[in-house]
Amino acid sequence: MNQMSEKLILISNDDGFFSKGIALLADVMQRLGRIVVVAPKSQMSGQSHSITVVRPISFKQEMDMPFECYSVDGTPVDCVKLGLHRILTKKPDLIVAGVNHGCNASINTIYSGTMAATFAGCEAGIPSVGFSIDSDSKQECLDYIGDTIYRIAKSVLTNGLESGICLNVNFPVGQSRGIKVCHQANAFWEENFVEKGDEEGEKFYWLNGECHLRETSPQADLIALHNGYTTITPMHTDFTAHHLLKTYAQRFETQN
Amino acid sequence: MNQMSEKLILISNDDGFFSKGIALLADVMQRLGRIVVVAPKSQMSGQSHSITVVRPISFKQEMDMPFECYSVDGTPVDCVKLGLHRILTKKPDLIVAGVNHGCNASINTIYSGTMAATFAGCEAGIPSVGFSIDSDSKQECLDYIGDTIYRIAKSVLTNGLESGICLNVNFPVGQSRGIKVCHQANAFWEENFVEKGDEEGEKFYWLNGECHLRETSPQADLIALHNGYTTITPMHTDFTAHHLLKTYAQRFETQN
Repeated sequence: MNQMSEKLILISNDDGFFSKGIALLADVMQRLGRIVVVAPKSQMSGQSHSITVVRPISFKQEMDMPFECYSVDGTPVDCVKLGLHRILTKKPDLIVAGVNHGCNASINTIYSGTMAATFAGCEAGIPSVGFSIDSDSKQECLDYIGDTIYRIAKSVLTNGLESGICLNVNFPVGQSRGIKVCHQANAFWEENFVEKGDEEGEKFYWLNGECHLRETSPQADLIALHNGYTTITPMHTDFTAHHLLKTYAQRFETQN
Repeated sequence: MNQMSEKLILISNDDGFFSKGIALLADVMQRLGRIVVVAPKSQMSGQSHSITVVRPISFKQEMDMPFECYSVDGTPVDCVKLGLHRILTKKPDLIVAGVNHGCNASINTIYSGTMAATFAGCEAGIPSVGFSIDSDSKQECLDYIGDTIYRIAKSVLTNGLESGICLNVNFPVGQSRGIKVCHQANAFWEENFVEKGDEEGEKFYWLNGECHLRETSPQADLIALHNGYTTITPMHTDFTAHHLLKTYAQRFETQN
């Protein structure tokens, strides 16, 4: 690949610039172009699409990393926005986020900082892919998913993605049965707060819970993942329930 | 209305329990049933769907408020989850969030703590509505939108909403031309970080930007809002780009 056509790839995550997942993404993406990592300086799980608007943010180059790397004292979305507008000198050809240590299929999408970074790339008009693995262990050896990540990223670099579309990719732990393109499974979290008291008697609550499915389709991402498939869910940021626009117009519209 | 049939309404927001917007919602909802306010103890704008998972959260009853009110040291989504599982003793009939001081139409939905609280209610299977007004002034007199809020909330309490659906309601400032049911406008934020330095020469960046439309349809929520309509956008939390499932299956699927 000559210098003129070298692709530029922005990499981010929500686990922090030092995580194993982002090191794997950096390794793989170096085979596809020039990479720049812009990631939170600390763990940002559960941050969803939050942005820092109540204080300014800053970044610094991490010189000890084996790739070009900037840490940001902000959220995953802050990282992508700062990367695009203050760190990179040209628009990247691809944005990848992850590899997240924890499944981001189904309703987890809405809580996920990894997918938020991916949506932020998509909003900026850049082909973007979020990668996650269905294991919360930060020590999990991830190398065996590298080749699949390479193939997906290469396809997206070559063919692009439709306007406004990004990919949510989830890996099972261990040998995958293949790649399945899925819809987001209909599921919900049933919360279970764990109560703790301090010495003054004040009560504190740790958020905990279980994810429950509301459907059984083998084409649903969370189900396919549990069946051993690597899942790809094409996503957009249009929340509209289009099929109800006419019904709700009849129910709610008025003229003053 | 007798005691047996009294409706229970949970109210939250992202501006904090002390804001003018939530006081208006509380006033209006008291005409429809028993209300309980569970809201952040401080300003939580831009928090999106973030949840607090790295520390426990706590709440306390605010005895000086003119309604039953609990403040939470967490995000809007934390408030709804804690309200449902630790504060209320039965499932509410309706969840309302807002009134947010600032427009939550179009792409703002994904950044909005108000809409995140609404989606959290929806995820829990409870009819939920988020209300916002197209003015960032925290001092704006909001009383003139009270009657419309009442009518929308009463309709939802009476008829419910389809499973998995919630409403994103946005008010223009001043006289509205009526209620229009809209789709989420296709738009994006163009960031413009404002750079500031401190005495040691470290640089800081304030996130700033402008929202740009990618469409012109008068049925798009942001456009209808700017044309003077109160907009209702029926929303769900399915991010799947369903129209691309077949195309992407051909492009990406493999069998191992």
